[in-house]
Amino acid sequence: MVTLAEVARRAKVTGATVSNVLRNPQKVKPETVERVMAAIRELGYRPNLTARALAQGRTSTLALMLSNIANPFYPEFVLAAEREARKRGYFLLVCNTDDDPAITRAYLDQIAGTLAAGVIVMNTDLAERELVEVAGRGAAVVLCMWEHVQPTRALPCVTVDFAAAGALAAGHLSELGHRKFGALVGEGSGGPQTVRVAGFESGLAARGHAAKSLVAARTRDSIEGGYEAAMTLLRKHSALTALFATNDLMAIGAMQAAADLGKRVPDDLSVIGITDIQLSHQFRPALTTVRFPTAEIAARSITLALEMVEGTAPAQEMYAVRGPELVVRESTGPAPPRRRG
Amino acid sequence: MVTLAEVARRAKVTGATVSNVLRNPQKVKPETVERVMAAIRELGYRPNLTARALAQGRTSTLALMLSNIANPFYPEFVLAAEREARKRGYFLLVCNTDDDPAITRAYLDQIAGTLAAGVIVMNTDLAERELVEVAGRGAAVVLCMWEHVQPTRALPCVTVDFAAAGALAAGHLSELGHRKFGALVGEGSGGPQTVRVAGFESGLAARGHAAKSLVAARTRDSIEGGYEAAMTLLRKHSALTALFATNDLMAIGAMQAAADLGKRVPDDLSVIGITDIQLSHQFRPALTTVRFPTAEIAARSITLALEMVEGTAPAQEMYAVRGPELVVRESTGPAPPRRRG
Repeated sequence: MVTLAEVARRAKVTGATVSNVLRNPQKVKPETVERVMAAIRELGYRPNLTARALAQGRTSTLALMLSNIANPFYPEFVLAAEREARKRGYFLLVCNTDDDPAITRAYLDQIAGTLAAGVIVMNTDLAERELVEVAGRGAAVVLCMWEHVQPTRALPCVTVDFAAAGALAAGHLSELGHRKFGALVGEGSGGPQTVRVAGFESGLAARGHAAKSLVAARTRDSIEGGYEAAMTLLRKHSALTALFATNDLMAIGAMQAAADLGKRVPDDLSVIGITDIQLSHQFRPALTTVRFPTAEIAARSITLALEMVEGTAPAQEMYAVRGPELVVRESTGPAPPRRRG
Repeated sequence: MVTLAEVARRAKVTGATVSNVLRNPQKVKPETVERVMAAIRELGYRPNLTARALAQGRTSTLALMLSNIANPFYPEFVLAAEREARKRGYFLLVCNTDDDPAITRAYLDQIAGTLAAGVIVMNTDLAERELVEVAGRGAAVVLCMWEHVQPTRALPCVTVDFAAAGALAAGHLSELGHRKFGALVGEGSGGPQTVRVAGFESGLAARGHAAKSLVAARTRDSIEGGYEAAMTLLRKHSALTALFATNDLMAIGAMQAAADLGKRVPDDLSVIGITDIQLSHQFRPALTTVRFPTAEIAARSITLALEMVEGTAPAQEMYAVRGPELVVRESTGPAPPRRRG
C-alpha cells in the first residue's frame, strides 16, 4: 500500500502539505498542489477512508472502554475490534477504566462525541442511566457482553447467551458421569456472573441432578481468585469430582489448586471454564471450555457502532452472536469409578 | 470522589452545562451558574486536572502505540502507563498497530499533536526518521523499550539493559552446572532480539564456556514460536540441558515442547526466559526468568512524555530504568548428573 509519507517524499514536501493538498488545496501554492497531485498519480496513492472522513468533518475514531486490560480476554477482543474498525477506515482508541466507575465517567466526558464518534462499553460498574446521558449528547453508545442489562435502542447490546454456555458445561460434566459438582462464580465487572451459573444449574436440573449435588463459591474473576476458591471448595467437599468456573481464568487457577492438593486433572478432578481465551489451549493440561465467538462479538459491536455513527438507527435492542460451543480438551474426563453413580 | 455527573444531578442540569460553567461561565445564565456553583460547594467537587487542561486549551491525552496487544507484556505495560497518566491528570489512548508500519503511520498522522499531545512508541518496524518527522510537527515522541535504536533528544528512549538481562540468564545456568545450551531468539517487532542473546553469549564466555557450547534458533516471539523452535533444537541436539529464551512467551512454549518430548522440567531440562510477564509465575512449572521493571518503565515513559508536552526539553537521550534481576522459580535446576562436566 502506498502511504502518504511516500507521496510526500516523492513530491519533496512534508506529510502535512500532502494532507493540506487533499483537504484544503486552496491554502497551498498551485505549483505545490500540482507536484503533489503528480506524485499521487505516479504512485497510485489512494487517500484512505480516514482522510476522507476528516475532509468531511466527521470524526473517524471509535473508542473501546474496557474494565481491565490485564484480563487476557480483553486484549484478544481489542485485536479483533481494532482490525474490524480499521477495515472500515476507522481508528480504535482503547481506554482502560481499571474497574473504576469514576474513570469510566471521566473518559466518557472527555471523548464521547468529541474525540470518538462512537463508544463501545464493555461490562462495567457504570450505571446504565449515565450511559443513556452520554448517548443523549450525540455519541453512539453500544454495550457489549453485559451480563445484566436492560438494553434500549439508544443503548443496544451485543451479547452472547451466557445461560446456554453454563448449560453446555453442565451437560458435558453430567455425560462424563459426574455427580458432585463445584461452581466457581466470578465477581466480574458489572456484578457476579450469575447468569452463567444459573444456566449451569438449569443444565444439571434438566439431567436429573438434585440441587444439593452442587456447591458454589464466589470469588474474584482471576487466576488467583479461582485458585483460592477451589482450594476452599476442594478441602471442604472431598467428594467433588468436577469443577465448573464461570470464566477460564478461574478454571486455570482451579487446575493449579488441584495440582497443589495432589489431585490429578482430569483423573481425579475435571475442570471446565467459559470463554476460550488463548491461555486455555496453551496451558497444560489444556482446558476444556465453552467458547464464546470473541472475534465475531468484536466485529458485530464495531459494525453496530458505525451504523449508528453513520445515521442508521439500531433496528433492535439486543444483537446476539451465534451460540457458545463446547471445546473438549484435556482437563475433563470420566468421573473416577469409585465415586460414580 | 465526587464526579461532574453528580454535580449535574444535584444542580438539575446536564454534564455539559457543568463543564460550561467551569470553562465559559459567561455563556451560561447567571442563575444556572449560581446553582451549579452551589452544588459544587455542597458536594465538595474538585474539577480534575483534565478539565483544567481543557480550560487552558491544552490537549490532555497521551497515546501509546504498541505492536501487538495480544502479547501479554503489553496489557501489563498499558495498565501501569494508564495509571501513571491518570495520576497526572492525563488520559491514555492505546493504539494497537498490529505489527504493521502502515497502520502505525496512519495512527500517527491521525493523532500525534492533535488528539494526543504526546506519543509513546513501543518497539515497532517504523523507521526512526518517520518518527523524527512526527516530532517535527510538534508532538512529543518518546521511544520505549527499543532494542535497536539511535536515540536523539527529539526522540529520547526509555530502555532497559537488554544485554545485562541475557548475561544474568547465562550466569544462572552456568552456576547450575549446565554445559550445553540452546537459545531461542525471538523475531520481535523492530527486529530480532539479538542484543539479549549477545548478552547471553558474553555471559557464557565470561564463565569460560566455548562458543560451540551454544546452539541458537530464531523464531517468532510467541508461545507457538518457542514451542516449534524448542522442538527442533531438542530433537537435533540431544545433549542440551538448558534452554534460554529471549522472551518469556517462547520459554513457556519451550516448556510445553519439553513435556511433549517426555523431558521433565527442570530435572532433564532447565528453561529460563526474560521479562517476567504474569503468566510466568502462573504457569506450572513456574518459570525462572530475568525480570524487567515493567511498571517503572511505563511510569518513566509517561513522565518523560509529559515533561516534553509541558515544555521541558529532554536532558538526555537515553533513560535507563534500574537493572533487570534474576527471579528463580521452578523451571531451572542443576544439570542432570550424567551430563555434568
